[in-house]
Amino acid sequence: MKLFYYPGACSLVPHIALEEIGAPYEALKVDFAKGEQLTPEYRLINPAARVPALVTGRGVVTEIPAILGYLARTFPQTGLMAVDDPFEFAEMQSFHMYIATTLHVLFRQISRPETYVDGELCRAALKAKVPEMSDHYFRVIEERMADGRPWVHGDRWSASDIYLYVFSSYLNMGDRGDPAKVPFIWAHRQRVRARPAVARALASESAGMVAMQIFD
Amino acid sequence: MKLFYYPGACSLVPHIALEEIGAPYEALKVDFAKGEQLTPEYRLINPAARVPALVTGRGVVTEIPAILGYLARTFPQTGLMAVDDPFEFAEMQSFHMYIATTLHVLFRQISRPETYVDGELCRAALKAKVPEMSDHYFRVIEERMADGRPWVHGDRWSASDIYLYVFSSYLNMGDRGDPAKVPFIWAHRQRVRARPAVARALASESAGMVAMQIFD
Repeated sequence: MKLFYYPGACSLVPHIALEEIGAPYEALKVDFAKGEQLTPEYRLINPAARVPALVTGRGVVTEIPAILGYLARTFPQTGLMAVDDPFEFAEMQSFHMYIATTLHVLFRQISRPETYVDGELCRAALKAKVPEMSDHYFRVIEERMADGRPWVHGDRWSASDIYLYVFSSYLNMGDRGDPAKVPFIWAHRQRVRARPAVARALASESAGMVAMQIFD
Repeated sequence: MKLFYYPGACSLVPHIALEEIGAPYEALKVDFAKGEQLTPEYRLINPAARVPALVTGRGVVTEIPAILGYLARTFPQTGLMAVDDPFEFAEMQSFHMYIATTLHVLFRQISRPETYVDGELCRAALKAKVPEMSDHYFRVIEERMADGRPWVHGDRWSASDIYLYVFSSYLNMGDRGDPAKVPFIWAHRQRVRARPAVARALASESAGMVAMQIFD
């Protein structure tokens, strides 16, 4: 397998999942700073010009929830997801989708405001709105974590914990929500960070990337 | 099963899927015009205050790609998705996710601009940007349909065709992209519209809703 990623981007989610699995794979950096995602070569891999993309022996899988589902079903012994029970699997995917369609697209208002609106004034307004909406979207997750159980789905660790860890880490960036408002999520972050697979994925992505410290 | 929906909203996707399946279910309208999605009663069903939500004997499933995956695996004889092959299943989910994270959130810039930005001026600018980005996102799908095969995944009909049909129908609204730029998608729309299950779901949602004609 080959994972196309950009350091510190959302592609860190499947990167950690691959480290948890432990099967051979190659991590290949797509340099967004150089616009490599827009090259004809990369668009053959992902026509949507985004990371992550996972190249398998069968073909390419894109979009984090789809990649996590594929990895979980292909390597069931890792326990990434409840693969045999359609309801439990769907519950986990609901959580992945919630992050994908709320926090994930929200943070693009900072990283890629030009895809939302024209004009510098409105792009600044778009960025300014992020903390409020981030707090709003995280609150829904905080409420489900407030029973004090260690992982997103209770007592069992899963891919949902990786996904939440990466996105709660973005709260360290200062411009996208307040960590103090989500103490249960913040404690959860440290539990995920302590896993050896997370340290390995971070080490792999961190060469030359100062901003990787947000994940510590 | 119970499906919580709003007429003509994205919840039409699982509504059509349920009609294709043919198992008993009840469709329950959540009246967004009256703010019913924000009531404590509904937030017990979906804390994110959105539709669709599918209530099953096991619990609630939210988010369209998760609901489609659940229905496909629970009723495999309907052929909604390739459920036995993790790679083909993931490929279909990639497509669902692409719509969910591009067109779906894009159209919210018109329907719910207050979640993106403050101020009337920037909300107007946010709406004005939609046609350009819609054309951009639809083009990626149009290119994959340009081989002339009847369905999103080639010769086999799937849940992806339902999802695309609902979102290409929104092009009829005039303010979110140009149907003339996507002739293959437009022809695909009529193929999906011709299915009896689509007619049944539309009839169920259409009572008193003039705007439902965009789906014809």
